[in-house]
Amino acid sequence: MPESFAQRLQTAIDRHGPVCVGLDPRWDRMPEALTKGKPPGDPPTIGRFCEGVLDAVAGQVAAVKPQSAYFEALGPQGPGIYSRLIDQARRRGLLVIGDVKRGDIGSTAQAYAAGHLLADEAPDAVTVNGYLGEDGLIPFLDAASRTGRGVFILVRTSNPSAKQIQDITDATGKPVYVHMAELVARLGRREGLLDADGQSSVGAVVGATWPDEARALRKVMPEQIFLVPGYGAQGATADDCMASFNDAGRGAIVNASRSVIYAHARQEMAGMDWTDAIATAAREFSADLRQALQRRFGQ
Amino acid sequence: MPESFAQRLQTAIDRHGPVCVGLDPRWDRMPEALTKGKPPGDPPTIGRFCEGVLDAVAGQVAAVKPQSAYFEALGPQGPGIYSRLIDQARRRGLLVIGDVKRGDIGSTAQAYAAGHLLADEAPDAVTVNGYLGEDGLIPFLDAASRTGRGVFILVRTSNPSAKQIQDITDATGKPVYVHMAELVARLGRREGLLDADGQSSVGAVVGATWPDEARALRKVMPEQIFLVPGYGAQGATADDCMASFNDAGRGAIVNASRSVIYAHARQEMAGMDWTDAIATAAREFSADLRQALQRRFGQ
Repeated sequence: MPESFAQRLQTAIDRHGPVCVGLDPRWDRMPEALTKGKPPGDPPTIGRFCEGVLDAVAGQVAAVKPQSAYFEALGPQGPGIYSRLIDQARRRGLLVIGDVKRGDIGSTAQAYAAGHLLADEAPDAVTVNGYLGEDGLIPFLDAASRTGRGVFILVRTSNPSAKQIQDITDATGKPVYVHMAELVARLGRREGLLDADGQSSVGAVVGATWPDEARALRKVMPEQIFLVPGYGAQGATADDCMASFNDAGRGAIVNASRSVIYAHARQEMAGMDWTDAIATAAREFSADLRQALQRRFGQ
Repeated sequence: MPESFAQRLQTAIDRHGPVCVGLDPRWDRMPEALTKGKPPGDPPTIGRFCEGVLDAVAGQVAAVKPQSAYFEALGPQGPGIYSRLIDQARRRGLLVIGDVKRGDIGSTAQAYAAGHLLADEAPDAVTVNGYLGEDGLIPFLDAASRTGRGVFILVRTSNPSAKQIQDITDATGKPVYVHMAELVARLGRREGLLDADGQSSVGAVVGATWPDEARALRKVMPEQIFLVPGYGAQGATADDCMASFNDAGRGAIVNASRSVIYAHARQEMAGMDWTDAIATAAREFSADLRQALQRRFGQ
């Protein structure tokens, strides 16, 4: 049996803190030092930017989360850059969460799982969408347990209109996102997914922008590791993120994307090399979380 | 203004019937004549299979629906084959619905829309997942209205566990899939998306496996074209599909994938060239739908 994703992620968190940096390479926000004179969206330049981010954050964060959309936007060359990035991250000791949010009927989910979890070049975990229910999720979970990889199922997303569908409440007052959480908790106990120390390799995406919902979800999903987007550019603070941790101050990893990887554009970083700016922002992000954890859990 | 997707699709349906063939290239089900002696998943062989399907169905169906998962499963070469396939389909006069089921927060949805709807090589329409609500959908809709392309939003999927999340009912008894349908109907009236003849370029995915739900949804979404999966291998009959059509016998397109593209394996096709088997199956599929429409709407 390969070491589980939950174990590998916990080891990385113990070493580097519960922090993940998102790789959302947007051409118009990348450092001019890289993009100047290049055709917009130039794939090798985007590859160089991503590698620069990896160098800047390696050893400071537990994981990186490349956002597939930005690579798919590059056309047929995009997936090659995404794959290379996964390999480069791994060589630098970073876990990789592929933010692909896939989801389909069982037979199709099997094909997605083959490409995104079973393949050698696959990331350590992927995000998936559970609107289709468990037969669309199980192929991903089976692939995860076979390969020691992980899955994060969308439960409560960080965006403003998350409420429209996710907050619909049933006759007993239970919202859709809690139903989804119960499904995630149940699926997370399937064979080969739950560790001896009670953490599942099936995690949940729970936006930092909704601390009240996160607190409720923490109770419904005691064994899930929460992947928490929404810190920084999306408006959530480190204190907001605390709702996603369990009583031991564990069980969550917070992601920041734009606030770290575009740090070169911040006034206080003026004149700094862009990779130094990213390294500084990653350190600040990690320290901010560590201090919030200390305030909240006395760690 | 480019001609709208809804108009182009209606023209194709008027000419070839409300039928779409799904391209789900699974290596283990492809004709031995093609796969023999080739390494499993060999990308050029898969490309040849897909082109053979296009040749067999061109002129007989309105559209084809390549399922992105099967191309992503091929690794970094997959997206190139998917793109080539879109181009080849178009040259044969077929509309292309890219079954990608993407969905993410607004800024990310914008990147997905850039790759999957704005790019020259993009298909005529894509499928998207609305679990994140409207801010994750609007970038796709804006890209569709700008380029004369379309979007099909998942409302009620064809798989067995569709009920788990989609059938949660609120205090008034209204299920999640009807809430999703109301959102789709409202978004489908945004500027540039509704045609003079009352059809929107924002359609809905409604599984043929749930005729009762489809009938209810037809009332909630009068302006949507329904993309109807589930016929054939998933168990729905042509009569089941009729619930997705409006009173004029229009407003829907039915998809069949496995029952058409793997027709060579059917006993009654034994000894037939695999492309002839597919052409025969596509003709039967189309005739089956035409007869059901005649029975139901007297067309």
